[in-house]
Amino acid sequence: MISVVLLGTGNVSKNLFESFLNNSDIDVVQVIGRTQASLAYFKDRAKTATDWGNLPIADICILAINDDAIEEVSKLLNTDSLVIHTSGSVPIKALQLHKRYGVFYPLQTFTAQKIIALDEVPICIETEWEEDLEQLNKLGALLSNRIVSLSSEKRKMLHLSAVFVNNFANHMYTIASQICKENNLDFELLKPLIKETAAKLDTLTPEKAQTGPAKRGDFKTLHEHLTLLEEPQHREIYKLLSNAIKASYGEKL
Amino acid sequence: MISVVLLGTGNVSKNLFESFLNNSDIDVVQVIGRTQASLAYFKDRAKTATDWGNLPIADICILAINDDAIEEVSKLLNTDSLVIHTSGSVPIKALQLHKRYGVFYPLQTFTAQKIIALDEVPICIETEWEEDLEQLNKLGALLSNRIVSLSSEKRKMLHLSAVFVNNFANHMYTIASQICKENNLDFELLKPLIKETAAKLDTLTPEKAQTGPAKRGDFKTLHEHLTLLEEPQHREIYKLLSNAIKASYGEKL
Repeated sequence: MISVVLLGTGNVSKNLFESFLNNSDIDVVQVIGRTQASLAYFKDRAKTATDWGNLPIADICILAINDDAIEEVSKLLNTDSLVIHTSGSVPIKALQLHKRYGVFYPLQTFTAQKIIALDEVPICIETEWEEDLEQLNKLGALLSNRIVSLSSEKRKMLHLSAVFVNNFANHMYTIASQICKENNLDFELLKPLIKETAAKLDTLTPEKAQTGPAKRGDFKTLHEHLTLLEEPQHREIYKLLSNAIKASYGEKL
Repeated sequence: MISVVLLGTGNVSKNLFESFLNNSDIDVVQVIGRTQASLAYFKDRAKTATDWGNLPIADICILAINDDAIEEVSKLLNTDSLVIHTSGSVPIKALQLHKRYGVFYPLQTFTAQKIIALDEVPICIETEWEEDLEQLNKLGALLSNRIVSLSSEKRKMLHLSAVFVNNFANHMYTIASQICKENNLDFELLKPLIKETAAKLDTLTPEKAQTGPAKRGDFKTLHEHLTLLEEPQHREIYKLLSNAIKASYGEKL
């Protein structure tokens, strides 16, 4: 049994919370938030509190809060337990005022509106001491079958890669959905393509999976697409990305 | 039973071919390619030929060739059958020299190395005459459960949207895979995230699904990411897309 205090009430916290509750080997001692309103999601299923300076005893205190706030908020915590954060980009050193500290970064996109299972989610852990590494390995193994020990530097680069495959890929979906809306086309039509684009990576590298007018140097279609895009920013994105795809061929739009 | 002649030997042709062979109601009368070498894939399972000017009799002649070549190659075809192309961006008029002509655009990413089932793939059809529409509806229904009748103009906009969700999203995967390689990180770690990014759209609009430093205005992380990116083009893409995501908040990097 591992006991945890969950600090923070956002997307990551809610997703971790559900996985914790589903696991009989994890005991959520308390969830701590800024306001009673932010704790509404949790309060019927766990003890909740708004006092960050008075932590109950638990094996691990999990700071699942905004990157910007981690270092400052961690200073409020008066505990000898292992204190960890869940951020991809914040260095482990942000928690070094604590006796024991570490990182537990689940590499996934979390939204409160869609709680997901963590089984397949890689969890990147980092600690200063062997004993804490064991503890985080144990917590990780209760949630996921993919635990990776990564330094802060490597985790940062992985998080940066994640911004490309998630944040930026999702923005491509957003632009497509806008184009569909403007032309009375059903965005649903694109979903099988979106899924196959992701699924293709099980078989092919992204380099091998690349198709389209930029890849095959079809300038007629590229130029026509630029005239069809009404939004200047969409044109700029289309041009930059098509040129990037074409870059290996040494040609420019 | 519908009989077809398949003209072209590329990714679309190979994927259609497999679905045709799997369907006892479709008869592939012949596959026509430029060279014997290009026909190697087909030759043990169908009649093949390199003579584009001498078509066998069939209900439908399917031009599954490069967009650039459709109009020119269609002029070589001496037939009274329904002639169709499979392109997202080429107007139906490119085939107007024929007596009967149309478009049969399967909205999906096709590569020869990964043959996929067409069941869920939206097939966008267009014809000039009702009788031909029925014929294409019939062929489409044998392959997929999603047939959509679309004008050339709408199909063009759908294809443009597809470039964003497929070509450009895949380029995001490529950049991430390069960052991983440079930092000795396993690109495999990103695959659950890539899949969930796509799967999320079953529950949320892309606008609602957006997360990340640009979305939440986390300038510290944004600026740090720019310093971590070694490739100037990756930096340019990161900046443009982050600014685009931030655009609705009126702030710039």
